[in-house]
Amino acid sequence: MPSISQKGQVMPESPIRKLVPFAEEAKRKGIKVIHLNIGQPDIKTPQVALDAVKNNTLEVLEYSRTEGSEAYREKIADYYAEKGIEVSANEIMVTTGGSEALSFAMGSIADNGDEIIIPEPFYANYNGFATASGIKVLPVVSQIEDNFALPAIEEFEKLITNSTRAILICNPGNPTGYLYTKKEIQKLAEIVKKHDLFLIADEVYREFAYDGREHHSILREPGLDENAIVIDSVSKRYSMCGARIGYLVSRNNKLIKTALKFAQARLSPPTYAQIASEAALSTPQSYFDEVNKEYTERRDVLIAELEKIEGVKIGKPQGAFYCIVELPIKDADDFAQWLLEDFRINNETVMVAPAAGFYATEGLGKNQVRIAYVLERDSLKRAVNILQEALKSYIG
Amino acid sequence: MPSISQKGQVMPESPIRKLVPFAEEAKRKGIKVIHLNIGQPDIKTPQVALDAVKNNTLEVLEYSRTEGSEAYREKIADYYAEKGIEVSANEIMVTTGGSEALSFAMGSIADNGDEIIIPEPFYANYNGFATASGIKVLPVVSQIEDNFALPAIEEFEKLITNSTRAILICNPGNPTGYLYTKKEIQKLAEIVKKHDLFLIADEVYREFAYDGREHHSILREPGLDENAIVIDSVSKRYSMCGARIGYLVSRNNKLIKTALKFAQARLSPPTYAQIASEAALSTPQSYFDEVNKEYTERRDVLIAELEKIEGVKIGKPQGAFYCIVELPIKDADDFAQWLLEDFRINNETVMVAPAAGFYATEGLGKNQVRIAYVLERDSLKRAVNILQEALKSYIG
Repeated sequence: MPSISQKGQVMPESPIRKLVPFAEEAKRKGIKVIHLNIGQPDIKTPQVALDAVKNNTLEVLEYSRTEGSEAYREKIADYYAEKGIEVSANEIMVTTGGSEALSFAMGSIADNGDEIIIPEPFYANYNGFATASGIKVLPVVSQIEDNFALPAIEEFEKLITNSTRAILICNPGNPTGYLYTKKEIQKLAEIVKKHDLFLIADEVYREFAYDGREHHSILREPGLDENAIVIDSVSKRYSMCGARIGYLVSRNNKLIKTALKFAQARLSPPTYAQIASEAALSTPQSYFDEVNKEYTERRDVLIAELEKIEGVKIGKPQGAFYCIVELPIKDADDFAQWLLEDFRINNETVMVAPAAGFYATEGLGKNQVRIAYVLERDSLKRAVNILQEALKSYIG
Repeated sequence: MPSISQKGQVMPESPIRKLVPFAEEAKRKGIKVIHLNIGQPDIKTPQVALDAVKNNTLEVLEYSRTEGSEAYREKIADYYAEKGIEVSANEIMVTTGGSEALSFAMGSIADNGDEIIIPEPFYANYNGFATASGIKVLPVVSQIEDNFALPAIEEFEKLITNSTRAILICNPGNPTGYLYTKKEIQKLAEIVKKHDLFLIADEVYREFAYDGREHHSILREPGLDENAIVIDSVSKRYSMCGARIGYLVSRNNKLIKTALKFAQARLSPPTYAQIASEAALSTPQSYFDEVNKEYTERRDVLIAELEKIEGVKIGKPQGAFYCIVELPIKDADDFAQWLLEDFRINNETVMVAPAAGFYATEGLGKNQVRIAYVLERDSLKRAVNILQEALKSYIG
């Protein structure tokens, strides 16, 4: 029998994959599962984007340009200009989701055995893309007590060797909700310049910064043109996760030219999704204001309710729509499965994402879960109440 | 300055990339360029697919399932059943184009430094995906004199080592148009079973088999369940290149499970495109009959016209919509550029794809070009006439 590759064997599975059959089984039994585990917002996609696709007049669904059309990339450049980020259309490449932008970035900068440093906990799929590219992830631990702020820069410095190619951050963070300060971005800028590394920033949650906080893009950091690579996506911004459109943005022309070769091999990003995404750029500011107000309120409800539970620690989110919660238990995997299998109130239970899957360091995060607040406040309240009662029962 | 990866440096560019600026310059001068170089059909997308997208009622453009919806995969299984191929929905994974199916297949079966054997000339992007995955491509030369039939199986045998993971074929072939016979498929089946290799067949042109010839899928070969991996795509079948939907099909459950981990990292294939692709499965047989009749006629016109040119050899296509043509010149790259820069008849010229980019062996195919017959007969006739006159002038 032919054999599976080594990398295929070690490819990580989604942190919730093991729980999915239990959630399905619960649903088969007629139990309502409140999903705190997923980042699929319930927010409506902007009408202007939906209409653009419904009103399209294509007769032949052709390939688009490999890097996205000139017209679309010009409009994306305008979007960045409004955010105080000056980039030209040639510095933007349209990709099939932020996922593909990250794959292309990794392939363009790192060879088999090379290393990338990432503060943990981090978006679990970074591990998947790294494994697929033969890259080793070196984690630097951030702490729930600091709301997952940037670890001391010396911790990064310690890990840098000749094999290091980049530092990768997610800002604001999935799964932490932490928003890096200007000072933290400056520190990262200094260290990557000092060691000739790339700084890759996943800024897909850029628009989701709360309490009047400002998002500091690495593209606004002076002197970082050769080092900075931004990963972006329409998925969360316009509640268009299913479009699968993202961008790779860099002023390093060599990087963009190299990424273009990876992109040519897969021909083009999806055409319908680009029609929707280009139209989405005309979404009025009021849409974002309402959405951010909604998420802020959801976050506040979630935190207020969680704080009522004894023994719980919360990494307080300042952006995105996730938070990491430490529970007074030993094994969140077991607890999450038990919630689905054995616990319910009024025929309802809760699904959470065990946080261990967001850490690269073995053993970390085992008493933590990630909660996504992409549900309405009433559901969030009920969900936290279920968690509270469940903990009593589980511990007791 | 941070450095580009080794693999990024050696990633091959598209065979026509160098010619694109010359084509653009010609167009700027008002010259009409007849594109014989591209595989973008002019055939209309089935109305049923276009309508499904126009009539969609989505309010939130959500992620789809990672492997494509159960309902869609069931319908794909029905499609295969009609072709005499028995596969279940669980043996099918929906991907972002055939491109992604091939990337996942390569990642699932081969590690850095492993080898895959491919008869050449082959679809140039195979090289790109292999390079991105750190895989080495070993070519086996097929000959224009045989219409690019399968080379002697001993030639494959010679190249097989402990590092060999798979043999990859394209059937019918891009760029050759060759349709493998049942006997050839059987020979390949024997050798991969003997050496415990995977046999990957890119069957995206399955429906384009002419002159009453039957397409032999590797999935119909008995005893090959653990070895056979099929790459499929809606792109050419329904003239939906811009959808970016393909399939990975295998009865090897371990392979599908491994590929699913690669797929989970990128979340899901594009949602709108899946709506179009699912609807496209209801395309009436009359659509394919008409399209195949059209392509057969185009091919016949193309070959008849090409045969009028002295010193030209043609790999006679039995499927797909490409053929390789050997010209009485030394350097097809130079000729193709010269056509765009210096030659025209009635303000028209022709763009061809130099074939060297479809060979892995350095120096092969330098006097060959690939011609795609995706244009109407009149354009094809004019194009070949231009080629004929151009050759006289270029040689003379």
